[in-house]
Amino acid sequence: MTEKSSENRCPIDYALEVFGDRWTLLILRDLALSGKRQYRDLINSKEGIATNILASRLRKMEVDGLVIRQRKPEDKRQVFYALTEKALDLVPVLLEIGRWSTTYDENSATPPALLQRYTEDPQQLINELQEAARLKQR
Amino acid sequence: MTEKSSENRCPIDYALEVFGDRWTLLILRDLALSGKRQYRDLINSKEGIATNILASRLRKMEVDGLVIRQRKPEDKRQVFYALTEKALDLVPVLLEIGRWSTTYDENSATPPALLQRYTEDPQQLINELQEAARLKQR
Repeated sequence: MTEKSSENRCPIDYALEVFGDRWTLLILRDLALSGKRQYRDLINSKEGIATNILASRLRKMEVDGLVIRQRKPEDKRQVFYALTEKALDLVPVLLEIGRWSTTYDENSATPPALLQRYTEDPQQLINELQEAARLKQR
Repeated sequence: MTEKSSENRCPIDYALEVFGDRWTLLILRDLALSGKRQYRDLINSKEGIATNILASRLRKMEVDGLVIRQRKPEDKRQVFYALTEKALDLVPVLLEIGRWSTTYDENSATPPALLQRYTEDPQQLINELQEAARLKQR
């Protein structure tokens, strides 16, 4: 974990360095699956993220190449967060985690229809969710 | 994150409660994919886990239904850790994380042959790894 520049790094260890923080994965979820784009939307996640944690995690995600800060030409004061392709490629990881949780958590909020679609054709659902996220970011 | 008993919990949040700790996922990796069974093997992971962290994470994994402590009849002093089916069902999550890391980390240690097998037939590889882990635990 401390050998950040070492060669032959375990892929699980690399992933944990990039998104192995509970808040980072929840921010990814909100940006990729809930269509959130702005700081004020992200701060209102139901898990109650603290403002300093949200800000630091977004900065780390920018450094790690997961999000890009954007401003719209018509209103340069507003900042939007867009996911990179590297981040969108985590949608399959999010869905696989969701499948596992839905199996073992009796309080899971996953809509049964979504789980069924994932079971029947995971790649199709992955493509749809990634495309929807790309469209929202334009 | 604080509403542990709330209904309609987000599946990502549930997963993070159970294994959203970098060490837990590394211990899972060692038990599921590296064939480690004992404390003395786990303490020698190359990431250098501290002994108190390893002990506390193993206890939490036991409470969360991921591992079972076993003793062999022929030597009751030795403790072995076996993964439950709930934990073995995280093998697809580990592999999906591995696929992502291997794509984006230029120092990844993933053997190319393994990645190719995963790409070609993920379910076959998942079944094989789970079966190998079950056999080792007997």
